[in-house]
Amino acid sequence: MTLSVAMHPAARDRVADRMAALDLPLRILPLLDDGRCMADGEPMPLAEAPARAVWLTSDMIGGAFADCLEAIAASRTVEWVQTFNAGLDHPGYRAIAAKGVRIGASSAQAAAISEYVFAHVLDIFQGLAERRAAQAAGEWKLLPFREVGGTVWLIVGYGNIGREIGKRAGAFGARVTGVRRRAAPAPFADEICAMDRLEDRLGEADVVVLCCPHSSETDRLVDAGFLAAMKPGAVLVNVARGGVVDDDALLAALDSGRVGTAVLDVFEPEPLPRSSPYWAHPSVRLTGHCSFAGNGTRGRADDLFIANLPRYAAGEALVNEVDLELYLETLPREHRP
Amino acid sequence: MTLSVAMHPAARDRVADRMAALDLPLRILPLLDDGRCMADGEPMPLAEAPARAVWLTSDMIGGAFADCLEAIAASRTVEWVQTFNAGLDHPGYRAIAAKGVRIGASSAQAAAISEYVFAHVLDIFQGLAERRAAQAAGEWKLLPFREVGGTVWLIVGYGNIGREIGKRAGAFGARVTGVRRRAAPAPFADEICAMDRLEDRLGEADVVVLCCPHSSETDRLVDAGFLAAMKPGAVLVNVARGGVVDDDALLAALDSGRVGTAVLDVFEPEPLPRSSPYWAHPSVRLTGHCSFAGNGTRGRADDLFIANLPRYAAGEALVNEVDLELYLETLPREHRP
Repeated sequence: MTLSVAMHPAARDRVADRMAALDLPLRILPLLDDGRCMADGEPMPLAEAPARAVWLTSDMIGGAFADCLEAIAASRTVEWVQTFNAGLDHPGYRAIAAKGVRIGASSAQAAAISEYVFAHVLDIFQGLAERRAAQAAGEWKLLPFREVGGTVWLIVGYGNIGREIGKRAGAFGARVTGVRRRAAPAPFADEICAMDRLEDRLGEADVVVLCCPHSSETDRLVDAGFLAAMKPGAVLVNVARGGVVDDDALLAALDSGRVGTAVLDVFEPEPLPRSSPYWAHPSVRLTGHCSFAGNGTRGRADDLFIANLPRYAAGEALVNEVDLELYLETLPREHRP
Repeated sequence: MTLSVAMHPAARDRVADRMAALDLPLRILPLLDDGRCMADGEPMPLAEAPARAVWLTSDMIGGAFADCLEAIAASRTVEWVQTFNAGLDHPGYRAIAAKGVRIGASSAQAAAISEYVFAHVLDIFQGLAERRAAQAAGEWKLLPFREVGGTVWLIVGYGNIGREIGKRAGAFGARVTGVRRRAAPAPFADEICAMDRLEDRLGEADVVVLCCPHSSETDRLVDAGFLAAMKPGAVLVNVARGGVVDDDALLAALDSGRVGTAVLDVFEPEPLPRSSPYWAHPSVRLTGHCSFAGNGTRGRADDLFIANLPRYAAGEALVNEVDLELYLETLPREHRP
């Protein structure tokens, strides 16, 4: 049976040779920038196109993405969507998951995010701003620094992003504790701790990285109690979602010095309003949801699609496939129907 | 036979328990801040003290260090010196090596230096200054960045420092080529290239790190020919010695854009004179010989002494022992007698 897959023409062109090499009975339906889909030479609404799978890529810009999610939910043919989103907090995914459409989430951002985390932690530990100031002033100065080696990292959410961070932290000689829903061994972690034991472990950690999904279980996870349990002066990095943090509690902890520095790439809402005290806080390093934006992310997303296409065709589990039941059970409050 | 070892009292105190656990017939001769040594309750010149070994640590400040090197060269009893220097470019080592006194060089700086290198390369690749400026301006901005993953690193000098850099670069998904005097396999390198084939490989490298000893073979290694062979826009990091680089040639390559950014921690002479054009060059990140100064360096130096003490006592090869013959044969011009 022909396997019709809707995708942006730019994405198709990048992987055309690799798709051909898979030797599957593929039919590519070009997905237009306005969210419509070409089939039999005619543009038609994606919801009516005969697509069995949809590959959503970052080639499509802006509003059409939300329309595509709606169309997939309305489609009678789509069985699988491979998306470029690492987190499924867009409300459009709920209806898709509720219909039982299989979702392949993206792990393509993981390596980029881990590099972002290291750039900022090394900057904080080594005081690059102070080095730059000494150079600008023409001062020859011995500036000692703190090493990542020997520090303890608590990585909250030990999925594909957490493991990439753990791998690098381990190579630097840090001790890595991964935090997951259930404690089961995982690569690049010295130890895995279950989410319900998280607070017991916060006091040891020099660096706490949030890279968990935003769910009913992690909503406002970083609250006053969490922060009070942290090691004084520790670094907190949020590359998960803004909703994982209680902003008022974090600001209080930054003011008191309990948290030494917060590296924040995600917020609720985004863009972060100009009125947020985060912008000018001396202990905050703030970026506008950039941590995924490494030059390798698109290529890894292509690789993932090419890895999942034959798995889908063979009826096998996908790499990084979403557990639809768990996803729907743990939607954060504001995403519930 | 009693093994008399001269060391600073602060160093002695840090490792006293571990020395005791070695169960060796040790006699500790306290090394004073003025370079003299206590023996039988009396201060005496180190050259006349009955020390068979001297452990030079960073506890001793300033001028006394040079005096100690002279005293070791003049001593009739010293057989081994364990030093905190990673590079033996201090001219005092020549006479010590010429006498056949065994020298244990330090590998304690390696992990710190590798962290320094990563902080700067990630800063350059991710443009942390631009992120900071966006935050200061209150601008929500998607700032894409370059990843270390997928880049090629050429590590010139693949000893203990090079391997620590290679280990971390590998964990980031970079391709690592180590450059050594002779091509023999080494850990954490995808490939080892012999020094005489170096120029053939420069064109591939996105990051070139200099961490070789300064010797007659590496003196002004980075000259106009080396720089012309580099990949346009590559990053050059010097954590070796200033004498490895021809400054005029590097400045010309920075002006022309052939070298994208130079990260320079070492110079000839040091401190770098205020008149050097490096200070204000927009493509130079300059630090005042800081790359060793991680908070873990002293502890690793203690560990190395404790590892080498029983090896010395048993007449075995030391960890990171200097090849005296090679060292003397390859002294750079200005250190020759």
